[in-house]
Order: sequence, then C-alpha cells, then structure tokens
Amino acid sequence: MPVFTESAASTRELRVLPSFAPPLPRLNAPFSQQNQPDRYEVVVVGAGPAGLMLNLLLARYGLSDESLLCVDAKPGTLKSGQADGLQPRTLEVFKTLGLADEILTDGCHMEEVAFWNPSANAEEVIERTAIVPDVAVPARYRHEVTIHQGRIERILETDLLRYSSRGIQRNSRLVHVAIDEAADAEFPVVAELETNGQRRTVRSKYLVGADGAHSVVRRCMGLQLVGESLDHIWGVVDLVVDTDFPDIRRRCAIHSPAGSVMVIPRERIATGDYLTRLYVQVPEDAVPEDGVNEDVQKPVDEAAAKMDARARRSKVTLESIFQHAADAFQPYYIKPRKGGAVDWWAAYQIGQRVSDRFTVKDSKGIERVFIVGDACHTHSPKAGQGMNVSMMDSYNLAWKLAYVINGLTPTISPIPDPILATYHSERHTIAKQLIEFDRAFSSMFSGKIGSADDGVTGLTHDQFLQVFSTGNGFTSGCGIEYPASLIVQQHQEQQSHQTSDTTVSTAATSTTLPLTPASANPIYGTDYLNGILRPGRRLLNVTYKRHADGNRRNLHDDIPSTGRFRLLVLTSTDLLDPTGISATTLRALGSAVLPKYPASVIEQIVIHPRLAREFFTWRDTPDELKQYSEMRFYSGYELEDVYGVYGVDPAQGAMAVVRPDGYVGTVAALGDVWRVDGFLGGCLVRV
Amino acid sequence: MPVFTESAASTRELRVLPSFAPPLPRLNAPFSQQNQPDRYEVVVVGAGPAGLMLNLLLARYGLSDESLLCVDAKPGTLKSGQADGLQPRTLEVFKTLGLADEILTDGCHMEEVAFWNPSANAEEVIERTAIVPDVAVPARYRHEVTIHQGRIERILETDLLRYSSRGIQRNSRLVHVAIDEAADAEFPVVAELETNGQRRTVRSKYLVGADGAHSVVRRCMGLQLVGESLDHIWGVVDLVVDTDFPDIRRRCAIHSPAGSVMVIPRERIATGDYLTRLYVQVPEDAVPEDGVNEDVQKPVDEAAAKMDARARRSKVTLESIFQHAADAFQPYYIKPRKGGAVDWWAAYQIGQRVSDRFTVKDSKGIERVFIVGDACHTHSPKAGQGMNVSMMDSYNLAWKLAYVINGLTPTISPIPDPILATYHSERHTIAKQLIEFDRAFSSMFSGKIGSADDGVTGLTHDQFLQVFSTGNGFTSGCGIEYPASLIVQQHQEQQSHQTSDTTVSTAATSTTLPLTPASANPIYGTDYLNGILRPGRRLLNVTYKRHADGNRRNLHDDIPSTGRFRLLVLTSTDLLDPTGISATTLRALGSAVLPKYPASVIEQIVIHPRLAREFFTWRDTPDELKQYSEMRFYSGYELEDVYGVYGVDPAQGAMAVVRPDGYVGTVAALGDVWRVDGFLGGCLVRV
Repeated sequence: MPVFTESAASTRELRVLPSFAPPLPRLNAPFSQQNQPDRYEVVVVGAGPAGLMLNLLLARYGLSDESLLCVDAKPGTLKSGQADGLQPRTLEVFKTLGLADEILTDGCHMEEVAFWNPSANAEEVIERTAIVPDVAVPARYRHEVTIHQGRIERILETDLLRYSSRGIQRNSRLVHVAIDEAADAEFPVVAELETNGQRRTVRSKYLVGADGAHSVVRRCMGLQLVGESLDHIWGVVDLVVDTDFPDIRRRCAIHSPAGSVMVIPRERIATGDYLTRLYVQVPEDAVPEDGVNEDVQKPVDEAAAKMDARARRSKVTLESIFQHAADAFQPYYIKPRKGGAVDWWAAYQIGQRVSDRFTVKDSKGIERVFIVGDACHTHSPKAGQGMNVSMMDSYNLAWKLAYVINGLTPTISPIPDPILATYHSERHTIAKQLIEFDRAFSSMFSGKIGSADDGVTGLTHDQFLQVFSTGNGFTSGCGIEYPASLIVQQHQEQQSHQTSDTTVSTAATSTTLPLTPASANPIYGTDYLNGILRPGRRLLNVTYKRHADGNRRNLHDDIPSTGRFRLLVLTSTDLLDPTGISATTLRALGSAVLPKYPASVIEQIVIHPRLAREFFTWRDTPDELKQYSEMRFYSGYELEDVYGVYGVDPAQGAMAVVRPDGYVGTVAALGDVWRVDGFLGGCLVRV
Repeated sequence: MPVFTESAASTRELRVLPSFAPPLPRLNAPFSQQNQPDRYEVVVVGAGPAGLMLNLLLARYGLSDESLLCVDAKPGTLKSGQADGLQPRTLEVFKTLGLADEILTDGCHMEEVAFWNPSANAEEVIERTAIVPDVAVPARYRHEVTIHQGRIERILETDLLRYSSRGIQRNSRLVHVAIDEAADAEFPVVAELETNGQRRTVRSKYLVGADGAHSVVRRCMGLQLVGESLDHIWGVVDLVVDTDFPDIRRRCAIHSPAGSVMVIPRERIATGDYLTRLYVQVPEDAVPEDGVNEDVQKPVDEAAAKMDARARRSKVTLESIFQHAADAFQPYYIKPRKGGAVDWWAAYQIGQRVSDRFTVKDSKGIERVFIVGDACHTHSPKAGQGMNVSMMDSYNLAWKLAYVINGLTPTISPIPDPILATYHSERHTIAKQLIEFDRAFSSMFSGKIGSADDGVTGLTHDQFLQVFSTGNGFTSGCGIEYPASLIVQQHQEQQSHQTSDTTVSTAATSTTLPLTPASANPIYGTDYLNGILRPGRRLLNVTYKRHADGNRRNLHDDIPSTGRFRLLVLTSTDLLDPTGISATTLRALGSAVLPKYPASVIEQIVIHPRLAREFFTWRDTPDELKQYSEMRFYSGYELEDVYGVYGVDPAQGAMAVVRPDGYVGTVAALGDVWRVDGFLGGCLVRV
C-alpha cells in the first residue's frame, strides 16, 4: 500500500493499551492527604482473596492511593492458600471484571460429579452409581473451576497494579483498631500498624477487616464467632497421583466401607501433570473396624469429645492419610506418582461458625468498621465455598462503600448510611445459610451410605444425591437471594408510588405519559433459579443480538463490574408505534429520569421482542433510544427467548433496575417510570 | 477451618504464575555466544506484526536471547500502524497462543456486512440491498475483529517479554546484509546494524527480513517485487462519527451514484466512543460529475496515467475525503463527532505486487535469508488481509526454522533443508492468490454497481455479492490450501509405503498388526472448507467431550502453538474389542511409533465414535491409550458429529498427522501406521 500522506492524532497511541475500567464520578470534594498525614478514606486489613477483591474494586471505582490503603502482614505476594475452587457465580463476577480468561484457560473445569458407593458385588467393593452434572443450575459457566488460591490472588494483584502504584503494603501488621470520634470525627477509625517493626497510627473514615479466621479486627471490635465444632477429622492433600481409579479426573464422592473420600480434580501444572486434591476421612479411633457407626459411640459430653478429638488430630500424618485413602479406593490402587508429587497437605476438623455482626457503628450510627471473608465465617472446605463467599462479601461491600465515599448516595433519616447498612443484612443472611448448608452437607458426607443404622441421617444414596442437587442453587452461588431492603424492593410490598418522596418531573419534557401508574408485578413465574426476574437475585446471563451491528453478545458483558446501575427495559411488541407504551416509556426515561442522576452512573439496556416488522432503523424508534442505548439495544428472540427466561410477557414488557453487583433491585411494569425513579432516588442523589 | 497442621512443598508457589509454553527439545548442542561475540542463530529485522510474531514464536520454542536477536529501527513500542483487521484464521492462531482474550473482549466483532446500492426511489438515493454474515465459512470464530494494529503489537511484545529479557532491540537499523560463507560458513549471513548511530556487524545462521514494504533485506538480496499499480485513489480515515446512517456499526459496502465507501466499524475507545474507519473513493479528476465511467476516460499510456495519478493524489486532503464521503452517504449525514475526533487519515493508490522469491540460499543450497510480511507482498487494505497474511508468513516459517536449529529435522539429500524450502513454496502460493484476489476485489469495489456501461466488470449487485461470498474462504484465512510437498502428502499421489525409506519395527513389541497396509484414502467427501480432512488445509475446530472428566472442549485447545506435531486418531466402532483394528493400531502407535521420535514432540489425540457400550473405563482399552492420551481422549458424537465433519466413516476410522502450525500433513487409514510413520520420518529425526 503506497501511502503517500498520512496524519495521526496523538490520542491514537493510547489505543494500544489494555482497557481501563472508567472510575465512578465523585460528587464529594476530591480527597487529598495534603494537610492530614496518615489519614485515609478506607483502610483494608489483609490481602487474601477477600481483601484483594475489595481493594481492587475500590481502586477501579476511582479511589486513589492517597485515599485507600491495603496492608498485609506477610512479606510477599505468594500465599500458601488452601482454597482451590471457584463457583459459577464467582466465575461470572471475574468475567465482568475482565479477569476470567486465565482462570478459564488454565484452571480445571469440573463439569461432572461421580458417586461411588458400596457394591453388591463383593469383588468390586465399590461401584459408580451415578455421574451427574456438577452444576445443575443455569449460569454463564455451568461448571466449577479448580485452581490454586495463590494464583487467584496473583491475578487480582496484577490487575490492582494497573490502578494503584502502591499496591499492597506488605509486612504491615494490624496491632490494634478502635473507634475514637473525640479527636477526629471525620476520621474516627484509629488503626495501629506495625511495618517492618516500626509502629505508626493511621486514621480512616472506614476500615475493613479481611484478616482471616483469627481476625484482629474482629477481636478488637468485640465481635463474636458463634457456632460449634464437630468432631469429624479429615485429611486433605494436593498431589499428582498414580492410580487406576477410572474417575480420578472427575469430582467424586466416594462412600466406601472403609471410609469416605472426596476427589477434586485440579489444574495442570508446569510439568504437564495434573494435580488432584483428596479429602480423606480419618476414621474415629473409637470406631471398630467392623463399621459400626461412630456417632453411636460418640461420648455424650461434648467438651470431652473435643479434647479427645484434638488428641486424635495430632496423630494424623501424611502416611496415615494415604493409608486411609488407599483403603477407601479398594479395589483400585492410588499413590503419589513419584517422589515430590505431594504439593501440600493438612488435617482439620469440620466446624461452622459465624460472627454475630459484620459491621460496627460509631456513636452517630454510621457504619465505620466492617469484616469480610473468613473473619466473618468459618466452615468446612468440602463444598468449595470459602474463597467464593469471601470474595462475594467484598463484591457486595465495595460499591456501597465507594458510593458513600464519592457522595453518590442520598441520606435518608434516621439511618445515616442506609445503603452501607445493607452490607450486614445481606451478607449475614448468606453466611447463616452457608453455615447451615455446610453443617448438613458435612454431616451427611461424613456419614456412611447404605448402612441402615447410620445415626447421622440414615442416608441412602438417593437422599445424598438429592441434597447435593438441591443444594446446588446455593453452592453454585447462583441461587442466593438477598432480603428486602432499600436496595431490594419486593413487589409484594405494594410500595405505592403516590406516597413516595420522589417524583418524576414530566414538566421538563414534552412527553406526557398517558399511563396510569401500575404497581402490579409484571413478571410471571416463580422459577427464579432459572432466570425469572426477582429482586434480590442476580440477573441471569442471556445471549442476544445487537441491533446496531448484528453482534451476538452476552448480557453479562453489558453489565461489567464498573460500579454502574443498569436500567433494563424489555419493551413490548408495540415498540415501532410512536404513541405506544414502549416508545412513550423510552422517551420519558431518556428525557425525565436518566438526566436527573449523575452522568454515566446509570446505563440503559433495551431489549425488544419479535415485532410486526423484522427490519427497522433508528428512524422508527424514539431518539432517546439511540441517544442512551445505541450499542445496548438488542433483539431478545433471535438467539434465546429472553422474555421467556425472564418471565416477561412480550405484549406487556417490563423494566428492572440492576444494582452495580448484578443483583436485581426492583422490577416495574413498562410505563411505571415512577417506580423506577423512586427506586433509583433511594440509591442515588439527583443532580 | 481450624487447620492444625499443614505442609507445603516449595514447588507449590510456582503454581501461581501464568502458564508458560514448554520449549521444544534441542538435539543439537546448546548454543552459546561465549566464544563467538555478535553471532546469533537467527536475526529478525523489523518488529511489526510479522517480526513480532516470528520472534515470539522462536522465543517460545526455546531460542534464548543469546541465540535470537530482533532489531527495529523505531525508538518505541508504539506504532502508528495502518492495519486494523484480524481474520477468523488469525483469531484461531492467537487463541492457540493464549493471546486472543483481550482481542476478543475489547475488539470490535464484525459479524455482518450490509450492502448499499443506488435506490430506485429517487428520494432515498441509496438503499440497503442485503445484510449477510461477514464470515460464511466454518471457523472457531465466525467473525472478524477490528482493533488497532499497535495494540496487536503491544500484546505480542508483552508476551515476548515473558520469554525474552531483551525483547526487541530498538533504534537499530539494518544498513546492509550479505551472505559471506568464506569467513565463517556456519554463520554466513552478515548484517551491518546501526544502533543509536553506532555501527556494528553481526553474523547469523539465518536472517529474516520483516522490514516492510521498503525492505532493506529484500533490496540487498536482489529480490524483486513484481506487479503493477492501478490508479484508483482512495482515502482512509479513522474517526468517531456523528451520523444518522443506520448501518454505521456494520461493515458496509456502499456503492452510491456519488462514489464508493467502505465502512469498517472499529473498537470502543477509552472515552466510551466507538471508532469507525471509512474507505472513501476519491473520484478521478477526469471524470465529470455526471457519472460517466472513469475507465472509459483513462489515458491509454500507463506511465502517463501513473504520473497523472501521482499529481492528483497530492491534492487529496482530509476535507476532500470528508466531502466525498458526505456525497456518497446522501441522503444521510456523516461528519466527525466533534473536534479531535479524527485519529488518523491517509490517501493511497491501490497496487498489488509480490516478490519473486521469499528466500535466498547460500552456495550449498541452504536457505539463509527469508522475507516475511509486507516485504514479500503489497496490496490494497480493503479486504483486511495485510496484517493477517504477514503474521501467517511468520507462523509458517517459525516452527520450520526452530526445528532445523534444534536438530529435529532429518536431512534428505539432495535438498539440505527440505522443510525450510517449503516456506517459499507454501507462502508464495498464498501471496500470489492474495494478489489475484485483491486485484479482482479492488477493481470491483472501485467500479459502480448498476451502471450497465461499467468498463471494469459491468458488475451487478448480485455478482458483487457472489464474489464477496466465494472469496470468503480465502479472505477468512480458513480456506487456504498449501501445495503438495514433503510436509503436505496428498493421498492421490499413491505414495507406496513399500518403497518408503522408513519402516515400522514391530519386532520391539508383542503387537502384531493383522492388517495389510492400506493406502486408500479413508476420507469421504470433498467439502474441505467445511471440515473434510485434507492435507494442506488447516484442521477445523470441533467440540468434543473428554472421557476422563466429561469436559466439553474445543479441539483447537488441544493443539496449542507449542510447536508440536499432533497425531489424530479417529478410532472405529470396534475400539472395545481388544483384537480389533482400533486397539491394535493404538498399541502399535504407542509401542512402535511414538517412542521412536524425540520426547514430547508428538502429541496423540484420540477420538471415538458411538460404541456398542456407552460406559466403559480404561480397563476396556489398550494401556497405550491411557499412557499417551489420558487427557486427550474424546467421544466424537455427543457434542458434534466429529466423524461427519471430518469425513470419516465411524466403521472404518482414520488417522491424520497435524503439523505444528495446525495444517493437516497427511491422512491415513486406521491401521496404516506405516503411512503415519513414513510421514513423521520425513519431518522428524528418530532417536
């Protein structure tokens, strides 16, 4: 191509960099440390998955290194973490952060679970009784991924360094934290840190303890872990195995006469070998080898039992774990492939505990200190929940904190920060469910299948399978539902827009809505797990085809984790009628609702059902549609029946507000812009 | 989880790093500069897409910074490149390098093309006559992606720095290159470089000119660009547009009475805006405004015409390009969205030229100097081929060069490096096809649609659409076919294995093949574009389900660009019969063929059709299957009809050898291990 003349703008060179997440607008005055040394808006203690996730999100939302400090007691970036599993919902979140690719490419996909139980054929000892999908609920990724926790942390930290020049401040231990409003009411949280032996005091508006099961923050704040420890002892080992067991690359629940084993296939490592994780039940000393159930023999005195368990725990060795595994795998052999094949091993007792409070308020009722992750809840690892629930704590908290700090939320008396208050109500609910699920699942798993006198549950294989499958909504992270609150508006509350303290000013526009406000729930169906729109639940991904360019896209790619609210408008079939309810609603939203809120904080996604005419152009739709949604306007019937998935009648349409974390906040009838505006007005200041 | 004891191996910390591509084994002595300063095995001149791709591949294959030097005349990493399009085949290759994710996430997917032509309705002026898929052939990604060339270069260079501490040596200009065997026959290529004004001479075994259209390497080697320049003048501009044209986000071919425009939608930039590229035909001065065809008026004397064109080119301005675009878009308006919306613009004339040779030999007939990319071929940009064909030149050359350097290829007299010789024969073939296609496509595109007296082609819209669609196999990169050679063994050649100089030693194994060697082509069908196995064509991706863990996978993820050969075995339905042809073949391959070649250089992928029993385990298949293919053994019927796609009869099975660049080298009947071994023996040394 013999170009003879060309001219390039300097901006063009910027096109070569990776995309950055756009920061949130800040309505409060910019923060600077200039006159207030060692004062931060947020201090995060701990840089495990929960702390890193929180720090990364806050940095992406626009908090600078002057505003945000994250400390960690350990010297380096590499962690010998125990977790290895990412649930479908966590994968969805990583995808919306643009961080899923390495995990999906290099991690081990667990797509199937095999169940092995005692065989009627004595020679076989055990037999495969079922293979079922590992994830039974709709999700963007219908599988789990296993991969080293340290790798997740490294991925988060690498991305953090694109937004923060300091990154994590290492070798920095939290010594003490307290709330002291007397000296400085704006920065009431006082943290004493020790960095490389040097002590210093930092003050902050907010402090988050992501400092693990032995949280100093939790202890200093006087929060209590409530719960109990059970006495089942398990060994866990990561290794490269040599075995003739047929399902070694599937997740397996093996209930053998000699004990229980769970197989977790893991990622391929640099040698080209594949790791396997084994959870191996260590039989109780008190249980005779003939298989009489251990629980029958359990001492009545719980305290004595715990002392006893502790003594037995100390006897667990790697060799004993292998021996128990070998017994349970009979007639198949299993052993470490060769010297050095063992990565890591540990022994533990199952215990479930949860903190009574996740937040601490100052004297004015403002939430000042938060705990996330293992600092809030501890439980057994076998359901693969820990790292996931921990990161999701941070994912829930981060946008709320950023909105308050940036001055984007309105204050509604008498609660100073009503949105921040939902962190405890939402995540404590989930933590309690987690603990309950884990208690049931662990007990079941430690029990024996097919032994009629099993004191724990008398569980049959079918019952176990049933619990496994029904628990999938919870364990996948896709079925959780946050309780009603300011930011989860259930329709049955019949909140009346007439009594709302927010109103739509239609005077500013020539559009007059011919609609009588309708507060009836526009959604039909109750199968929320399969996508029916439901406030408090995450919006299920769908695929749809874009009007502007015919691209086939995933809805989740239109709700990236950039801290924005999304207004989802599913028009009715009358879209091409300029006086119809669809066009009228789009004009009202574009002229009277969206302009009221801070620029760029609400993104509108519009979907249409099959219309009378297949081909139409922007000429045939309201100008406001192209203005706000040129690249977010889709047909919802060509690739997938979006209306059916979400429970929306194409003849009626519907609207939904989706929170920055991807959970539905409210649904409204098409035309009910009052409800939408009322909900948004509770979450966002108007400008 | 109250862990009381844990133990981690030091290797565990390694698990947190991104995956590295494993280097190729090296049978030649390791290379060191210790006693031979400024001597390299390979010098690459130029770090555009072609040079970076070559350098990255060689570094991944294991060439160290001591062995490999890449220089570039420019000072920085950012390039103001003109290319913006990645074809489906190029996307497939980037995926096999693990480098597709950012491109797919942030690039603009072109899924549809709209054709606009003169309207019968005078008020409309132009009308959309068709929307068709942009990519009409099967491919892993059925769309193109547009994204800034500088970003592609940055992605390649970022990855290069994981394998090379030096990276690209910048500010280093090639002054002269020559072959001089007299002074040093092992390092006969003498390059004179100038780095920051300092001259030095480096010697190398091989030198590759990736130094663009004005290649110094090509000039010094006396290679000639052959071809012609046409006199159509086009302007090209990248900008953020303001328009009411309905298809501005689709690729468009607009033939208006006022001239031709091609619209190329581009990626979203940091402002949230989307770029658009416009190719705008600049009408010939000699053409009156009434639309009389320019070719009728063309001066007869070609030299005079070129002089004339050059004069006219110099008058092209950005403003004139916008004016011509505005005319062609009538009745729609189009303009830059606001000040500073123009990224880059240029004017050019269409020309197609190709070098007569891509390689230069020394006196012994050894290929020593190569040219790749724009140094070999120049053509118009509108078919979006340039950057793609250039990188594919390097993709073709890299593994051949690495194999020769590492001592992995056998020498078959009289040709010293028969595999290296295929670089010219394969890529020159493609370059000639490219030039021919581009000449036809460009002429057509510059012509007018619907004007019966069009002197170029007298083209109707239907004819244009036809050429566009049939050209898609070529333009997508998915339909190219390399000619027969040592590494492309066509079946119709009826190469007889009896006369082959390679034999299978079955004495080393207890397996006796009950098969009479069959050289008949086991593949039925000829629709190679749709996947039918064909030597010389790239292996089409399929999805299949893995035996070991039930994972749904893409075959292309099992043929990453790590420089390995792949042996694809499609068993027949008799796999579970220990004496059947499938089991016998797998045993023969595992015991007598695969062990003969350097370790890890051949990877075996095994696919089976629906068998008599759905459930079976490793007990039911030969030990060699699990030994070589535990994690590469698939069912080929559950997700996709792999046998149908590839043209293999499930009752018969088949085998194929896939080259390191993903092209099929040979196909063989199941059981015909002689053919497979003979082919491999031509490509690889035996150990």
